[in-house]
Amino acid sequence: MAVGKTPVRKDAVAKVTGKARYTDDFTMPGMLYAKYVRSPIGHGRVKSMDMKEALAMPGVEAIFTYEDVPDILYATAGHPFSLDDDHKDVEDRKLLTDHVRCHGDEVAIVVARDQLTAEEAAHKVKVEYEELPVCVTHEAALAEDAPAIHEGGNVIKSHTFEVGGSLDQALAEADVVVEDIYTTPVVQHCHMENHTAYAYMDDHEHIVVVSSTQIPHICRRIVGQALGLPWGRIRVVKPYIGGGFGNKQDVVLEPMVAFLTHRMGGVPVKLELSREECMIGTRTRHSTKSRCRIAADRDGALKAIDLDMTSNTGAYASHGHSIPSAGGAKSVSLYPRNVIKFSALTHYANIPSAGAMRAYGSPQVIFAIESAMEDAARAIGMDSVEFRLRNVARELDINPLSQKEIRSAGIYECLEKGRDMIGWDEKKKQYANQTGDIRRGLGVACFSYGSGTYPVCVEIAGCRLILNQDGSVHMQLGATEIGQGSDTAFAQMAAETLGVDYDMIHVVSTQDTDVSPFDTGAYASRQSYVVAPAVKKAALELKRKILEHAREMTGKAAEGLDIVAGQVVNLNRPDRAVLDLGDLAIDAYYHKQRGGQITADVSHKTRTNAPSYGCTFVDLEVDVPMCKVKINQIINVHDAGVVIHPLLAAGQVHGGMGMAVGMALFEELLVDPKSGWVRNSNLLDYKIPTFVDIPKLDCAFVETMEPTSAYGHKSLGEPPIISPAPAIRNAILDATGVAVNEAPMNPKVLFRHFEKAGIL
Amino acid sequence: MAVGKTPVRKDAVAKVTGKARYTDDFTMPGMLYAKYVRSPIGHGRVKSMDMKEALAMPGVEAIFTYEDVPDILYATAGHPFSLDDDHKDVEDRKLLTDHVRCHGDEVAIVVARDQLTAEEAAHKVKVEYEELPVCVTHEAALAEDAPAIHEGGNVIKSHTFEVGGSLDQALAEADVVVEDIYTTPVVQHCHMENHTAYAYMDDHEHIVVVSSTQIPHICRRIVGQALGLPWGRIRVVKPYIGGGFGNKQDVVLEPMVAFLTHRMGGVPVKLELSREECMIGTRTRHSTKSRCRIAADRDGALKAIDLDMTSNTGAYASHGHSIPSAGGAKSVSLYPRNVIKFSALTHYANIPSAGAMRAYGSPQVIFAIESAMEDAARAIGMDSVEFRLRNVARELDINPLSQKEIRSAGIYECLEKGRDMIGWDEKKKQYANQTGDIRRGLGVACFSYGSGTYPVCVEIAGCRLILNQDGSVHMQLGATEIGQGSDTAFAQMAAETLGVDYDMIHVVSTQDTDVSPFDTGAYASRQSYVVAPAVKKAALELKRKILEHAREMTGKAAEGLDIVAGQVVNLNRPDRAVLDLGDLAIDAYYHKQRGGQITADVSHKTRTNAPSYGCTFVDLEVDVPMCKVKINQIINVHDAGVVIHPLLAAGQVHGGMGMAVGMALFEELLVDPKSGWVRNSNLLDYKIPTFVDIPKLDCAFVETMEPTSAYGHKSLGEPPIISPAPAIRNAILDATGVAVNEAPMNPKVLFRHFEKAGIL
Repeated sequence: MAVGKTPVRKDAVAKVTGKARYTDDFTMPGMLYAKYVRSPIGHGRVKSMDMKEALAMPGVEAIFTYEDVPDILYATAGHPFSLDDDHKDVEDRKLLTDHVRCHGDEVAIVVARDQLTAEEAAHKVKVEYEELPVCVTHEAALAEDAPAIHEGGNVIKSHTFEVGGSLDQALAEADVVVEDIYTTPVVQHCHMENHTAYAYMDDHEHIVVVSSTQIPHICRRIVGQALGLPWGRIRVVKPYIGGGFGNKQDVVLEPMVAFLTHRMGGVPVKLELSREECMIGTRTRHSTKSRCRIAADRDGALKAIDLDMTSNTGAYASHGHSIPSAGGAKSVSLYPRNVIKFSALTHYANIPSAGAMRAYGSPQVIFAIESAMEDAARAIGMDSVEFRLRNVARELDINPLSQKEIRSAGIYECLEKGRDMIGWDEKKKQYANQTGDIRRGLGVACFSYGSGTYPVCVEIAGCRLILNQDGSVHMQLGATEIGQGSDTAFAQMAAETLGVDYDMIHVVSTQDTDVSPFDTGAYASRQSYVVAPAVKKAALELKRKILEHAREMTGKAAEGLDIVAGQVVNLNRPDRAVLDLGDLAIDAYYHKQRGGQITADVSHKTRTNAPSYGCTFVDLEVDVPMCKVKINQIINVHDAGVVIHPLLAAGQVHGGMGMAVGMALFEELLVDPKSGWVRNSNLLDYKIPTFVDIPKLDCAFVETMEPTSAYGHKSLGEPPIISPAPAIRNAILDATGVAVNEAPMNPKVLFRHFEKAGIL
Repeated sequence: MAVGKTPVRKDAVAKVTGKARYTDDFTMPGMLYAKYVRSPIGHGRVKSMDMKEALAMPGVEAIFTYEDVPDILYATAGHPFSLDDDHKDVEDRKLLTDHVRCHGDEVAIVVARDQLTAEEAAHKVKVEYEELPVCVTHEAALAEDAPAIHEGGNVIKSHTFEVGGSLDQALAEADVVVEDIYTTPVVQHCHMENHTAYAYMDDHEHIVVVSSTQIPHICRRIVGQALGLPWGRIRVVKPYIGGGFGNKQDVVLEPMVAFLTHRMGGVPVKLELSREECMIGTRTRHSTKSRCRIAADRDGALKAIDLDMTSNTGAYASHGHSIPSAGGAKSVSLYPRNVIKFSALTHYANIPSAGAMRAYGSPQVIFAIESAMEDAARAIGMDSVEFRLRNVARELDINPLSQKEIRSAGIYECLEKGRDMIGWDEKKKQYANQTGDIRRGLGVACFSYGSGTYPVCVEIAGCRLILNQDGSVHMQLGATEIGQGSDTAFAQMAAETLGVDYDMIHVVSTQDTDVSPFDTGAYASRQSYVVAPAVKKAALELKRKILEHAREMTGKAAEGLDIVAGQVVNLNRPDRAVLDLGDLAIDAYYHKQRGGQITADVSHKTRTNAPSYGCTFVDLEVDVPMCKVKINQIINVHDAGVVIHPLLAAGQVHGGMGMAVGMALFEELLVDPKSGWVRNSNLLDYKIPTFVDIPKLDCAFVETMEPTSAYGHKSLGEPPIISPAPAIRNAILDATGVAVNEAPMNPKVLFRHFEKAGIL
C-alpha cells in the first residue's frame, strides 16, 4: 500500500541538492534577452516613441512596439477553452499597447545580446505620453464620470444567484440580521521564481516555448491564439517551477517570447521578469469590497447569507469575473440548509491586473461571510463554534446551487477537533472580559471549497504509463508538479493500483505539450481529484496488459493472477511469486514472437466535483497600544477526504496558512489613487511574513472517504489559505471587541479602528 | 494519397537553414568537457601513469583511469537484447583499460572546464607502457604464436552453413569451377558529425544522456549494463544526427559520459571526439579475405556458391561475427536455386575495432560472390547479365536458408532495366578487344538484402499518435531519423492511412527513451519495413477513435464514416464533409460530458523479413599507364518494393553509391603491420571521394508489391552501397582483362596488378 504513506517526494533530492533545473537554468547558444519598456504612468496614450538612442547601443538586436505586434485581442486567463461563447474569457489585450492602463503596462520590448544591455536600452527608449484620468478604487472606477479603461466601460460582468428559498422572507422572519462591509486588499503571490520564459524555433513552422507555467497545454492554446497560429505548431515545455499560486495560471510572457522568436527567425529569446516587474506586470489577487448580511434565529438556526461583492480586476480582465463567481459558488457547500444570495460585480481600474491566486475568490468571500457569521453568533449570543456546528454541511445535504448531494462532509468533525485542540471552551472562559494593554482572543472560521472546476469548465486529465525493462514504470502526466508534490502523490496512486513499490515509479516531471497527455494543469486544487481517475485507469489498464502477458508466458489465466510488490502472483497464493515484473518485461520487449512494449495511455474527464472543508482556530493576543497582533496558536483542521501523503498534506497546509497570515496581517500592494503609481512593488516595501513573523502552524485532518474520488480524497492545494484571515479577524474582535473588517489588519489599520472604537 | 508522392521532407527547413540542433548545439550551465588519454601503441600494458602535471593544470576537474571504472565487462554492439544466451554480444571491454589493444585505446579520461584544457591535460598524463607483440592482419592474428589480444585467444567465432544440396556433388558435377581470393579493406563511415554525447543528472538516481546515436533505446540498455544500474534509471535523448551509417549503432561514448556525471555529482559532462579520434576510436568496416568458388554449367545454370570468409574485427568484438554472419545470410536470397555453402571466421587484431557499417557484411560478401560470378560467366563464355538473369531469384522461389517463400523479387527486371539504361549489348560490342592506354569496360553486379533482422533478432517498433486541437496530428516514434528521411516517410504513411494531409502530421523527431515508444532504432535497413506496421496500426486506431467520436457528435454510425483530406465524410458521399477534424478535436478535448484526448499508442513486432534486391551497371575507362579509373556512367537499379518517396529514395541510392565508389576506388584505413600505428586517421590522408571524384550517379526503381509489407515497400537504406564495388571490379576486368580482386582499386593496387598482368 502506497497511498496514505509518506515516501520521500520524487523531486526531493533534485530540489535540496540544487540539481533541479528551472526555466532560467537553461540556456542555448545564441540566446538573446528581452526587456519590456513599461509605462511609468497609470493611464494614458503613447504620443511618440524615440528609439534611436536605444537602437544605437551595441548589442541591441531589435525593438518592437505596439505597432509591430499582431492586431489580435486575446485573453490571458488560464482557463480550459470553452465551447460556450458565454464562458469565453475577455479578450482585451494585445501583445503591446499604446493605450497604457496601469503603471508598468507594456508599450515596447527590446531584444539584446544580454540582460543588462536589454535593460539599459529599455530605459533609453523615450516615450511621450498623453496622460488620462486615473481610477484606482472601486468607487472611482464605477463613478459615472470615470474614464473608460476599455471600450464598453469599466464594468466587466456582474451576476446574482439566490438559492435555498427567498432572501426577503428569511430576512423578514429571522430573529436577528447583521450587516457590515468587509474589504480585502490587493496582494501578490510572491512565488520564489519570477516569471521566466524563452522560445526558439527549429524550422519555419514550429515554435517551442519553455516556461515556468502551471498550465502548459492551456499556454499552448493561448500562444496560438495570441499569434494567430494553429495550436499544433506551438510546443510548450514546463521544467520545474519555483511556485505559482495561480500567477502562473495566467499566460503572461509566453505569447511575447513566441512572437519574438517567430519574428527574429527562430533565434532563442529569453524574457525574465525582475521582482519589481513581477509585482506590477504579472497578476495580483482581486481586491474586494463586500456587503454581507446574515440572518439567524436565536436558537442558532442560520436563515440566510446575503453577500454583495465588488471586485477590482485592474487594467486587464485576466480571470476577471470568474474570481467572485467561483468564490461565491464554492462557498455554497459550507452552509447549505439556508437561503444564500450572492451578487457580484467586477470592474476594471488603473491598477495592475488581478488574476488567479490561491483559492480564487474564496478567501475574499469567506472573509466576509465568516466575519459576518461571527457577528451573527455574537448578536444571537451563541458560541461561535456552536453556531457553526449547528449550520455546517453534513453528509447527504444537498448543495442548493448545484442540486448535487454532498457525499462526504467532515466539517462538523473538523470544528469539534479544532475546538478540542485549541482548548476552546476553557480559554473562552479565561479570556472573558479582558482589559489592559495585552488582550487575548479566540477566533474560528470555516470554509468549503471545490475539487476542480466542473461543471463550470471541462475537467480533463491524462496519464500514460510505460513498463520498463527492469520492471519499473515511467509515468507521464499532463498534470503539473509546481512544488505541491503532485508527482509524488500520483506515483503513490499508480504504485497502489499497480501493486508495485513506490520507488519503481519514475515520474516524467517535465511537461511537453507535444507528447505529454493532455491536462489543463495546476489550478482550482483540481489535480489530485481529477487526475487520480486517469492514473487509476491507466494503472488498471497497464496491470491488465501485464497479466495478459503473464498468461502468454505461463499459460495461467490472467483472471487468476495479481501483482503484489512487483511480482506477478496467483490470486490465491499472493505470497509466492509466479514471475518477477522485470523478467516479464524483458520477455514482453524481447521475445521474438509475442508481446511488445506494454503501455497504457489514458484520457479521462471527471464529471463530479467533491466539496472539501476545513476551519481555522486562532488564539492570539493584541497589544492594544502598539496596535500589534501576536498569534499564539493557529490550527487548521481539514477534511480533504483520504489523505494521500500526510507529510506533504501538512506541508501544503502550513504553506497556505503562512500565506493567509500574510494577507491577514501584513500584505497589501499599494497604488496611489491619484497617479496609479504602485508604491511598494518590491519585497522591501511590500511586506510578506518572514520566518520570524510566522507563528507555529498546527494542522490536523479529519479523514472522510469521498465516494466520487478515485482514492477517496478531495482538494487540499488552495484551501488552507481560506479561513485563517477571518479567524484572525474574529479573534481580534474577541480580544478587543473591535470588528476590524478589512485586511491586512496591520498596525496602521488597527490604530484607525482602535482609535475609532475608543480603546486607545 | 501521400505514399508515393514527394512532399518536402519534414526536416528540410530545419536543416537547410541551420536551425536543426545536433548534440553539440546544446550546452548547459556548468558543463564540463572530457578528453580521453589514448594509447599511442598498438598493443601493450600500462606500467605506470603520472597525472600530477595534468591535475595541476587550472581548469582540470578530475582524471579517471582504468582503476576507477566499474569492474564490468560489457558489449557495445547496438543489437536488441537477446533472450538467447548464444546470441548475446561479446562482453570484452570495460570503460577504460590497462591492456591496450590498438592505437587509440583508452586508458584514462580527463574532465576539465573547457575542451582545450581537457585536451592539453590529456597530453600531459604520462603513461608508461610495456609493449606487447602486435598482430594486424588476418594471418598475423591467426598465427599459432600470435599474442592473445583477449583471454581465450584471437578467434571470436566461426560458423558454416550449406544449403540447397551437396557442395561436393555440385563441384564434381559442374562443367566449370572458378575460384579466387577476394579482399576488402578497412574503411570508415566518415559521417559529417563526429561522435558527441553529454550526460547530466537532476537527482541522485536518474542519468540523462544526450547523444548522437542511431539507437537510443538500445543505448539506454547498454549504459545501464556498463554501469551496473537499472535501465529505468537511464534516459537517452537523441537530437538530430549528422549521419551514422552504423557507426552510431554502437554505444561508444554514452556509458562514459554517464559514468562521469554519475561520479561527479550530476554535473553535465560533454565528450566530443575529433575526426582523428573518430577514425581510431569508434568503429570501422571489417576487412575481409574470402576464398570464393562458383560452380556452373556451360548452359548458364549456376550450381554452387562456396564462400569462405575471414573477418577482422580489430581490438574489440563490437558487432564481431554478426557481420559476416548477416552478410552471408542476406545474400542467400540472390541466387536461391543452387547449393550455397558459407563459412566464416572472425578474429581479433591490434587495429581499431570494426563494427556495423552500411549493409553490415554484405558489401564484403557480395564483392567476393559477384566478382566470382563474373569470373564464372567468363569461364563458361556467357554474357554476365544473361548468366545472372538465368540464376537470380524469382517470385515464389524458396530461400534455401530460411525456407521462406520469396514473395516479391524484382531483380530480374532490375537487370533488364539496367541493361537497357546503360546500353549494355551495344557497348559490349563496342568495347570488345581494346588495346591502347585508355580502355573502356562494362561491369554488372547484383545483390540481395533483408528488410530487418528477423528472425535473428526481435523486430519491435512503436508509434504514438495524438490528435491536436487544430486537427493536426503529432507522431511520436521510437524509430530514429538519422538523415535518411524516416520522419518524412512515416508522416506520409500516417497521412495515407488516416486520410489527412501530409502537412497535418507533426513528427516529434527527437527520441527520448523516457517517453518515446520503444523501437530498437536505425540499422539493418529495418525502419521503413518494421515500423510501418506500427504506424499503420496506430493510424487505424486513431481513425477508429476519431470516427467513434464523430458518432457521438453526429449520431451517425462510425462504420458509415471515413476521413478524407482532414474531413470526416460519409463513406458514400466522400465529397461532402460531415465534420472538420479540427472541430471534432475541439469537441473531444473540451466537451464537458463526452470525449477526451484522442491518441493511439501502438507497439508492434514484425515476424517477416522481405528480401530486397538491386544491381549496379558501370561503364568506365581505365587509364592503364596512369593506373586510374574514370567512371563514365554508373546506374543502380533497385527493387525496394513500393517506393514511398521517390526523391528521398533516389537520394538514398545516390548516397550509397557515392560511399561505394569510395570503398571501391579510394578508401582504406592503413595500419602499420609492425607497430599497429594507424597511418591515416584524418581526412587528408584517408581519401574519401569528394564532389570531383564522384561521377554522375543514376538510379532507377523496379516497383514490386511486397505482400508482407504495410505499404508494399522493402528496405533501401543500406542496399545502394552493396553492388557498385564488384560492378567496378568487373568493369575493370572487362576493360583490361585484369581481375583486381581487392578493394580499393586505387592506382597503387592497379599498378601492382597491371604490372603482374604485363599490361604496363
